[in-house]
Amino acid sequence: MIVLGLDPSLSCTGWGVVRAEGSRIAHIANGQVKTDAKAPMAQRLDQLHRAVRQVIADYRPDRAACEEVFVNKNPQSTLKLAQARGCVLAACGADGLPVQELAARLVKKAVVGTGGADKTQVQAMLKVLLPGASIAGADAGDALAVAIAAAHLKAA
Amino acid sequence: MIVLGLDPSLSCTGWGVVRAEGSRIAHIANGQVKTDAKAPMAQRLDQLHRAVRQVIADYRPDRAACEEVFVNKNPQSTLKLAQARGCVLAACGADGLPVQELAARLVKKAVVGTGGADKTQVQAMLKVLLPGASIAGADAGDALAVAIAAAHLKAA
Repeated sequence: MIVLGLDPSLSCTGWGVVRAEGSRIAHIANGQVKTDAKAPMAQRLDQLHRAVRQVIADYRPDRAACEEVFVNKNPQSTLKLAQARGCVLAACGADGLPVQELAARLVKKAVVGTGGADKTQVQAMLKVLLPGASIAGADAGDALAVAIAAAHLKAA
Repeated sequence: MIVLGLDPSLSCTGWGVVRAEGSRIAHIANGQVKTDAKAPMAQRLDQLHRAVRQVIADYRPDRAACEEVFVNKNPQSTLKLAQARGCVLAACGADGLPVQELAARLVKKAVVGTGGADKTQVQAMLKVLLPGASIAGADAGDALAVAIAAAHLKAA
């Protein structure tokens, strides 16, 4: 089973693809989609939608996963994030991918063993769990963590 | 100039197309996109994205407009609305349409003459401004009001 993990945001959306066979997980690919901050919002959202569709076309995942939304105290930030997230989910929907939404604590628990783990611990565990994988950046790492968590939860 | 007005929401997105020649405005079409409430979120967002792209393909607007987001007190409602709005904007972006965002007060002022107008007054003025138009519902009406306001502001 191939799982696509996604960490959506308007400026930089992380994605990570892993193969899960039972409880064994292998890295396939990861990356980050950056949108042009100078472009109008509609164009940036379209760039994001197209890029995620391309990742799906390239790696043919069986399912996708992303973290449940963290509702920011700043309504404008929440709005931007949610608009980007809508485009990322729609791109999955366009290819009929089921999308699992995972609480952030569940992702940390699956990857590090504790829901209260910090970002550094998550990134460190990724190097252990996916040896040799070259990770494009923090957002790609977060997306790989989501993919691993979704694969573990399915296998459990 | 053909203007597409949009009133995005997850359950029912209104759209309205008008032709503007100077200060004269004529109705072309309007409608509402309803998504399947039983379908997963990613599928619903994809339905919305596809439907808006189809409207754009059918009526070839020169520009689009929608209201600025009203940030709801309920974060879950804001999230759903913003995800839907992101897909609607991305659909415009996919065809390179410029999208103008208008404050709700500005829309009411352009259509009724006062920013404090209520929904009933807006719907009543639509019948005067677009005589003979059959309006698909309240959301389609709101979208037509946005289109008219955008056309007026451009002409002014």
